Amino acid sequence: MKKNLFYAQSGGVTSIINCSAYGLFSHFRKKNPFSKILIGKNGISGLISDEIYDLALSKKPLELLLQSPGAMFGSCRLKLPELSDKYFYENLFKKFDKKSIRYFFYNGGNDSADTCLKIHLASKMLGYDLQAVAIPKTVDNDLVVTDNCPGFGSVAKYIATSCKEASLDLKSMCRTSTKIFIFEVMGRHSGWIAASSELANNENEIYVHKILLPEIKFDQDRFLKGVSDDIYRFGYSVIVVSEGLKDQKGNFFSDSNETDSFGHAQLGGVAPKISSLISNQLKLKCHWSVADYLQRSARHISSKTDIEQAIQVGEKASIIALQGFSGFMPVIKRISNNPYSWLLEKADLRLIANKEKKVPTSFIEKDNFRINNLGKEYLSPLIQGESFPYFENGLPKYQQLDLHILPKN
Amino acid sequence: MKKNLFYAQSGGVTSIINCSAYGLFSHFRKKNPFSKILIGKNGISGLISDEIYDLALSKKPLELLLQSPGAMFGSCRLKLPELSDKYFYENLFKKFDKKSIRYFFYNGGNDSADTCLKIHLASKMLGYDLQAVAIPKTVDNDLVVTDNCPGFGSVAKYIATSCKEASLDLKSMCRTSTKIFIFEVMGRHSGWIAASSELANNENEIYVHKILLPEIKFDQDRFLKGVSDDIYRFGYSVIVVSEGLKDQKGNFFSDSNETDSFGHAQLGGVAPKISSLISNQLKLKCHWSVADYLQRSARHISSKTDIEQAIQVGEKASIIALQGFSGFMPVIKRISNNPYSWLLEKADLRLIANKEKKVPTSFIEKDNFRINNLGKEYLSPLIQGESFPYFENGLPKYQQLDLHILPKN
Repeated sequence: MKKNLFYAQSGGVTSIINCSAYGLFSHFRKKNPFSKILIGKNGISGLISDEIYDLALSKKPLELLLQSPGAMFGSCRLKLPELSDKYFYENLFKKFDKKSIRYFFYNGGNDSADTCLKIHLASKMLGYDLQAVAIPKTVDNDLVVTDNCPGFGSVAKYIATSCKEASLDLKSMCRTSTKIFIFEVMGRHSGWIAASSELANNENEIYVHKILLPEIKFDQDRFLKGVSDDIYRFGYSVIVVSEGLKDQKGNFFSDSNETDSFGHAQLGGVAPKISSLISNQLKLKCHWSVADYLQRSARHISSKTDIEQAIQVGEKASIIALQGFSGFMPVIKRISNNPYSWLLEKADLRLIANKEKKVPTSFIEKDNFRINNLGKEYLSPLIQGESFPYFENGLPKYQQLDLHILPKN
Repeated sequence: MKKNLFYAQSGGVTSIINCSAYGLFSHFRKKNPFSKILIGKNGISGLISDEIYDLALSKKPLELLLQSPGAMFGSCRLKLPELSDKYFYENLFKKFDKKSIRYFFYNGGNDSADTCLKIHLASKMLGYDLQAVAIPKTVDNDLVVTDNCPGFGSVAKYIATSCKEASLDLKSMCRTSTKIFIFEVMGRHSGWIAASSELANNENEIYVHKILLPEIKFDQDRFLKGVSDDIYRFGYSVIVVSEGLKDQKGNFFSDSNETDSFGHAQLGGVAPKISSLISNQLKLKCHWSVADYLQRSARHISSKTDIEQAIQVGEKASIIALQGFSGFMPVIKRISNNPYSWLLEKADLRLIANKEKKVPTSFIEKDNFRINNLGKEYLSPLIQGESFPYFENGLPKYQQLDLHILPKN
C-alpha cells in the first residue's frame, strides 16, 4: 500500500520556515520515491476544506523553498477541537484514508504542537496507522525541551543588526535633536527577541541601553531613572521593548481588546506608550519604531545557522516518522557554545504542547534592563553566518513554487 | 598660505552619508596634501562650540567611512540666523580665519543647503575668501534640480525589500488571521519613500496594494472601498503610508504638537490611525509597522548605485571648490534610464535652498493609490546593486574612526 505524506505550516510564520519543508521533502522523497507529498493549503485548514497541493504537480525546483520568507503553502491559526469531538476526527481521518496519508507533519510552535499531538492521539483512538511528527518553528523561541527554535536566530540577527544601525543614527542626532529611540519587537509572554538586541553590544560600545522583557514587571520609576542616567553618560538611549511588557499588576502595558482564536490578546503599540511616558516625564524628544512583520519575514538577513537548523529539523522529522515514531518532535540539543556544536534528538509532544519557555533569570543582568554574558553566550551562536537570497533587479527574488490543488474527488 | 578644509554633516542622516565624506576627503587630500581636513562635531554646531576634529589625528583607514551608517561625525538640526545678524557671522568667520579654513562643505538636504548658502553669502558680505559647496544628502529625495538625492536609493531598496517580505508573511496568514498590513514610512511633504514601495510589484505579482502619498489628499471612502476590493480579489492588502499623509483639509492625518527647530511638525503614528480606521469600518484584523530610523540607517541593504553616487558627489564637491566656485552644489543629471547613465553637474544653491521636489502627478496612477510605469522607470535604477557591509560574529561590523578634537586654542 502506498503511504503518502501530509505536511502543513501553522501559526505565525518565519523567514525560514520553508527551509524545514525543503529538508523534510528532500529526505522523504529519497526514501519513498513512490509516495505522494501532499500539502495543506493554509495549514490544517486546507485538509478540512479539501484544498491540498500535490507537490508532484510542481515543475519548479524544491530549492526555491530555501529562498522565500513567509509560508510557501499558507499558514493558519486554528485550534482543533478536543478529542471528545469524535465526529470531527472521524471525518478528518476519512480524508487521510482517502488519500492514503500515513505520515503527518505539522510545522509550527506551541499551538501547532498541540494540534499535532491531538492528531497523534486521535489516530490511536481511531486505530488509524499514522506517524504524526511536529516540526519546530517559532520566532518566539519559546518551545520547551529544544535548546532553541528554528526561525528565532534569523529574527535575532535582524533585531541586533537593526539596533546597531538605529543606534548609530540616534547617536548622530542626539546633540541637537532626538535623544531616545524606542524599538518595539515581538514576544507575547517571553522576551527572547527583545533579549537578542543585547547582541548588538560589545566590550567597546553600547548600542542598546535598556531592554524591557515581559518576564520583568515594568518598574516605571527605576526605568525613567535609568534612561536619565543614559542621557547623562552617553547623550542618548536606545530602548528595546517587548510587545508583551507587563505592568506591576501583571497586565499588558499596552493592551488591546482583540484576541486571536487561541484567546491570546493581540498586542501592538507599546512603543508609542513608552515614548509618551518619556516625553511627558523627562521632556526628551523620542523616535519609535514597531518592527512587527518586518522582523519575522526579513529573509534578506536570515542567519545561516538558523537556516541549517531549519533544514535539518525537517530532515530529522522525516527520519523519526520513517522509524515508526509518532507524537514526537525533533529537538535541538546544544553540545557546546564555543565552538558551537549541536545535535538533534526527538522529544515527546506531551512535554512540549502548550508550554512556554521564558528567558531565565540567570540570563538577566541584576538591574533587570540588560542581558548578561551567560545570556549572550546562549544567543550568539544562533545568529552566525550570512545566507543572502538571490537578488534580481535590486531586490531579493523570492520565487514561489507553482502549486496546484488536487481535484476534490 | 595653507588653505584648510572644513566639512560637516547636517540634518537627518542616511545609511551612506559617510560615503560622501570619503569621496570628498580622498579627492581633496590627493590635490592638497598639505592642507588640513577639519570636521565639525555634530554639524555646524561643532564650529560654533569649537569642537572640531582634525582628520590627521585619526590612525584608522578612511575606508571605514564606506561601511558605517549614521553620521560618523555627528549631525545637527540648527538653523543659522539671517545675514542681518552680522555679529554672529563675524564671530563665525573669525573661527574660520584662525584655522585657515578656505573651503567649506556642508553635507545635507534642503535646510543644509540654506545653511551653506548663508555661509557663502556671508563670506561675500565680509570679504572673506571662502569656497562654500553643499553636498546633497537626503532620504526624502526632495532636493530640486538634482535628478535624485544620495541616501534615497538605499531607503528605497530597504522599503521595497521589506514590503516584499512582509507581503509574503501576510499572504501566509490571511486565510484565518490578519488580512491587512500597514507600513508607515518617512516623508513629511513628499512621498518618494512611500512611492518606492511600488518597486516590490512586478508583472507577475502584486506585493503592495495601496500607497498613500502626502501629495494626494486622503480620500477615506475611496480608500476603504479600494481595500475591500483588495480583500475580495487577493484575500489581503498591503498598505504603505507616508508619515505626512494629509486629510481633505490639508492637515496631517496624524498630527502631533511637537515641532523641530525649523518649525516642522514632528510626525509619527499614522499607521495605527489607518489601522483603527480599517478595524472600525471594515472589521478586518490589521498589523502595522513603523520603520522610522530603521529605514534610513539600514546599511546592511544599501543600494550599490546609491553608494557610488554618494562617493562621487563628495568628490565632485571637492572639484567644484578647487575650481574656485562657491555657493554651488553637485547635482546628478540622468542621461538615460535603460541602461542607466548619469553624470554630475553643479547648480547654484539659490535654486535649491529651502525648496522641495514632490512626486509628480505624472508618476501616480489614475486611481491615486499606486505608482505607474513612468514612476517605476525613474525609481528602479536607484536601488540597483548590493554592497553588503563586512560581517563579524554574525553582525555588520560598522567600525568607527578614532576621532580627536583639536585643542580649543
